[in-house]
Amino acid sequence: MKLYHSARSSAAYRVRIALACKGLPYESRMLNMQAMQHAGPQYRSVNPAALVPSLDIGGQILTQSLAIIEYLEETHPQPPLLPADPLDRAYVRAVSQLIACEIHPLNNLRALDFVRTSYAQDEEGIRAWYRHWIADGFSKLESLLERERRHGRYCCGDRISMADCCLVPQVANARRYACDLTPYPGLVRISDACVQLPAFIEASPESQKDEFWKREPT
Amino acid sequence: MKLYHSARSSAAYRVRIALACKGLPYESRMLNMQAMQHAGPQYRSVNPAALVPSLDIGGQILTQSLAIIEYLEETHPQPPLLPADPLDRAYVRAVSQLIACEIHPLNNLRALDFVRTSYAQDEEGIRAWYRHWIADGFSKLESLLERERRHGRYCCGDRISMADCCLVPQVANARRYACDLTPYPGLVRISDACVQLPAFIEASPESQKDEFWKREPT
Repeated sequence: MKLYHSARSSAAYRVRIALACKGLPYESRMLNMQAMQHAGPQYRSVNPAALVPSLDIGGQILTQSLAIIEYLEETHPQPPLLPADPLDRAYVRAVSQLIACEIHPLNNLRALDFVRTSYAQDEEGIRAWYRHWIADGFSKLESLLERERRHGRYCCGDRISMADCCLVPQVANARRYACDLTPYPGLVRISDACVQLPAFIEASPESQKDEFWKREPT
Repeated sequence: MKLYHSARSSAAYRVRIALACKGLPYESRMLNMQAMQHAGPQYRSVNPAALVPSLDIGGQILTQSLAIIEYLEETHPQPPLLPADPLDRAYVRAVSQLIACEIHPLNNLRALDFVRTSYAQDEEGIRAWYRHWIADGFSKLESLLERERRHGRYCCGDRISMADCCLVPQVANARRYACDLTPYPGLVRISDACVQLPAFIEASPESQKDEFWKREPT
């Protein structure tokens, strides 16, 4: 398997965590986002949508982070990233999608660039936009966890799940934008527990070997 | 099952299509979005995130449209909305998520309201924002379908899948905003084929009995 990714893309980071949790080896193909490698013809021949991550499995290209994780779960079920009970599974997917569908799309580079250029926003304006959607989404997520009471050490009991693969990159990004996380003690506690684990350390942006990622746009 | 929804929410519309495809009966609890019923205390006791849809299954509240559809698939597998082959499943989920994670979140009411008020955009400005994200996402989606060559009459071969449940509401919304769809003949053809089917007719906004939805904000 070859993973096309960037260090800081939270969608890519989710997939790296899933691969590491399952102990699946892969070749890393890191794209230099600052040099716009993801939008160039070479990567477009891999993924015409120019989005990261893409997972190349023997020439078959998989896209969209949660679709990739579900594929890994179906083809490499151990250790599981989805619980067995259908209601628990629905909860894990709801947490994952609250992050992947309600928070991340509004705060990815594409959205920030469009807001910056269309509405003449400076860096402070962009930070205000970013923080608004973190606060909006994290308050919804914290209330979902509180109502469902399915969490334990991690998002769903004491076993790592796809929800944790989504939460950790989003909390890391929120911290990079200096968002106030004190209203979300449950999310912070779970994320802080996850990042102690070897799989999460291995998958982190800081553990990626390529040097250029440190110059990637935030 | 009780479905809390609104007629025009494309996330809710996706779930109505899935329920209709599987022939599952449900009680309709339609929220008056114009009267902000979704943000009121009564609905917040159902879904503290104040998002639609929510599916109440014997007091257990399921949220996030794709998580709900996956739950329905696992608990009521016939007729299937996901194909059997793992690579086909990954493709159906990637199409679904390209819509649910890359297009819809940027164009839902919450995002449009924030752009309107934060950047003093009038209706023409909002339409420009809306059309930008439709063009961005639909071009990615059309190229994904072309590259994968897994489509037939519908998004994945000649069987309805979760991808079609996502495509039809997004095409309907794009038409309401008068987006130019001529660059996406594949998407339009598939959507037009789907909406001929009884399940899609039954699930459409126009088929919902409640009258107030016609006054919902677009």
